[in-house]
Amino acid sequence: MSRFWNSNTRNLKPYVAGEQPKDKSFIKLNTNENPYPPSPMVMERIKGFNLDDLRLYPNTEGLVVKKAVARFFGISEDEIFVGNGSDEVLAFLFKAFFDKTTPIAFPDITYSFYPVYSALYEIPYTKVPVNEDFTIDLDKYPQEAKAIIFANPNAPTGLGIPRDTIEGLLKARPDTLVVVDEAYVDFGGESCVPLIERYDNLIVVQTLSKSRSLAGMRIGLAMGQKALMEGLIRVKDSFNSYPLDALAQVAAAAAFEDTAYFDETRERIIKTRESTKAALRALGAQVTDSLTNFLFVRLPGISGAEALAKLRQQGVLVRNFQSPPINDWLRITIGTEMDMKKVVEIVSKVIAQ
Amino acid sequence: MSRFWNSNTRNLKPYVAGEQPKDKSFIKLNTNENPYPPSPMVMERIKGFNLDDLRLYPNTEGLVVKKAVARFFGISEDEIFVGNGSDEVLAFLFKAFFDKTTPIAFPDITYSFYPVYSALYEIPYTKVPVNEDFTIDLDKYPQEAKAIIFANPNAPTGLGIPRDTIEGLLKARPDTLVVVDEAYVDFGGESCVPLIERYDNLIVVQTLSKSRSLAGMRIGLAMGQKALMEGLIRVKDSFNSYPLDALAQVAAAAAFEDTAYFDETRERIIKTRESTKAALRALGAQVTDSLTNFLFVRLPGISGAEALAKLRQQGVLVRNFQSPPINDWLRITIGTEMDMKKVVEIVSKVIAQ
Repeated sequence: MSRFWNSNTRNLKPYVAGEQPKDKSFIKLNTNENPYPPSPMVMERIKGFNLDDLRLYPNTEGLVVKKAVARFFGISEDEIFVGNGSDEVLAFLFKAFFDKTTPIAFPDITYSFYPVYSALYEIPYTKVPVNEDFTIDLDKYPQEAKAIIFANPNAPTGLGIPRDTIEGLLKARPDTLVVVDEAYVDFGGESCVPLIERYDNLIVVQTLSKSRSLAGMRIGLAMGQKALMEGLIRVKDSFNSYPLDALAQVAAAAAFEDTAYFDETRERIIKTRESTKAALRALGAQVTDSLTNFLFVRLPGISGAEALAKLRQQGVLVRNFQSPPINDWLRITIGTEMDMKKVVEIVSKVIAQ
Repeated sequence: MSRFWNSNTRNLKPYVAGEQPKDKSFIKLNTNENPYPPSPMVMERIKGFNLDDLRLYPNTEGLVVKKAVARFFGISEDEIFVGNGSDEVLAFLFKAFFDKTTPIAFPDITYSFYPVYSALYEIPYTKVPVNEDFTIDLDKYPQEAKAIIFANPNAPTGLGIPRDTIEGLLKARPDTLVVVDEAYVDFGGESCVPLIERYDNLIVVQTLSKSRSLAGMRIGLAMGQKALMEGLIRVKDSFNSYPLDALAQVAAAAAFEDTAYFDETRERIIKTRESTKAALRALGAQVTDSLTNFLFVRLPGISGAEALAKLRQQGVLVRNFQSPPINDWLRITIGTEMDMKKVVEIVSKVIAQ
C-alpha cells in the first residue's frame, strides 16, 4: 500500500475475473465465452481496415456501432450508448445516476460486480435475497431504493424474468430507475429493449462478449431514452473521450449486421445447453433451467470447491462462487457440442469417484 | 436532462475533444495526431493475430504491453500500469489518489482535462498561473496541495521543464504526489521515468497516441513505484476488468519494440517543427520554443477565433482555446513536411489579408 492511496482505494475489494490460463489445452468453460469465432463479416471488416488510419483518433461515441445497433433493434441512435465492454457501461451508469444519497438494490445472487461499483462510488445498497429456487421476486425490493438492478437472465443462476413482469415493475415504480443487464439475453431470455420507448425509468445493458463472440474486443451497450443516455455521455466525456478503438468499432458494427451468423451460433449454443442439461440431470445433478450460455449445476455428493478442483485436474475449467447459498454450485459455460460431451463424461467420472 | 441524473452529473462540464471531420481533404492539425502511420511491425502484429481468438477475453492487465514497456525503459513490469488511452489512466489516477479531502494543484494553462476529472470526483483544486512567458514555476505551488499535476512538455504551450527541476520538487516535497503527464515527451522533452526508482511520490503518464501513431488504438501508461501502480489496479479492477482489447495489446507491444521506426518518425517531426517555427517567425508570428509535436502560435494582427476560421476556410484545421490569456493563440499540430509548407503559405496569406 502507498500512503497516497485515498481512503476509498484502501477499502476497495476489486472484482476478480475468471482465470485466463496460458495453457490452451483446457476446455475453458469458466468465463462464459462463446465457443464459436466472431462472424466472418467481423473478420473481413477488421482485415479491410486501413491500418494507416490508426494514427487518427477514433470517433468519440462509436457512431458506426450506434448505426448498426439502431438498425438491429429499430431504435434511434440517441437511445444508444457504446462503451468499452458492458463493465465500463455499468461503471459509467453507477457514476452518472447514483451517489451516497441514493440507496440502490440488487439481488443477493447476481453479477458480483454490482457491489464493487457501489463500493467504488460509495453508493449505499441493499442485497435482496433471491427465493430458495433462485428466482427473483421484484415485489420484495425496498421502496426507498432509487434504482433496482439485476441481470436478466440472471447470473450465475441462468434464470429469466418475463418481460411482462419487468413492465409491471416499471409501471408500479415510475420514480425508480430499473437497470436490466441483458448480458445473456440472446440465449433465450426476453429483452426489455422494446420497452425503452415507453418507460423513461428503464436502462437495458448488453454486451458483445457473449452472443457475438467479441469478448476480446471490449464492446458494451446501454439503451434507454435520450436523456438517460446523455447522462452516460456526460460522465464518459469527463472520464475518457475515446473509450472505443477504431477496430473495435468496425468489428462491433459488423457483428450486429450479420444477423444470420448471430442466429445460427446462438441457436447452436442453446441446443447444446439443452442436451447437456438433460445429460447432467440424468447423472443426478441439480441443474437450473438456464436461458443463458452457461448451466448452473450442483453435482451430487461433492462440494463446489472439490468439484472445481477435480474438473480442473481433468482439464476442465469452470467457475464456483464461494459464498453460501451457492457455494456448492458450479457455473459451466456452454462450449461446443463435442466439448460438452467430454465434460459430461468427465462429470460422470467425478461423481462416481 | 433526466430526473435520474445525480447532482454531480448535472454539474459536469465535460471535456470537448478536437473535431474529427468526416471530410478528409482537410490538413488536420487540430488533435496532435502523428502524420506518419504506425510502425510496420504494428501492422504485421495486427495482421498476424488469429481473429478467432477475439471470442476470448483479453489479458486483464495488458501483460504483453508491460513486457515491451519494461524492456524499453529498463524498469520492472510491476512499475507499469496500462490503460485505455492516457485519459483513462489519468481518470483512474485521480480516482485512486485524490478525493474531496485532498486539494490538488495544476497550472492554469495545461491539459484542460485535469479540471474535468477534478469535477467528476469532486476534488478541490487550485489553478496556479503560469508566468507571462508561459513557463511553469514549481515553487509557486501551494504547500497544502496533496498533489501537483502538469504536462511536461506542457500543452498547449509546448514548453518543457528540465528533469533536474522536477527532481528538486520531488525532493523538496516528499509528501506531495507529483504527476508528470508526458504525452509529448518523445519530441524533445526530458522524461522523468529514470526518477521513479528513487522517488515514491512520482507518477509518470505516457500515451501511444502521439509519438507512436496509435491514437486510434487507445493505449496509455502510468509508471511509478509498485505501491502506486497497485492503487491504480485496485480502481481499474473495481471499474472494468479488461479495458484493453486483444488487438490493442499486440499493437502497443510492437510499437515499443520497433525503436528504429520510433526514432526515425519522431526525429522527422522534430525537424519539421523547427523549420515550421522558423518560417512562422519570419512571417512575424510569435511562436514558443515547443518540445512537442505541435507549435503554439500567435499570428500578428488577427484574433485567435478569426485565425481559426480563416485557416479552416483554407482547408487547415488547428485548435484555439478560447479563454484568456491564450485566446489569441493557436495550437498547430506538426504534419508532414509537405503539409507544413502549405500551412506556412496559407498563414502568410491570412496575415496579408
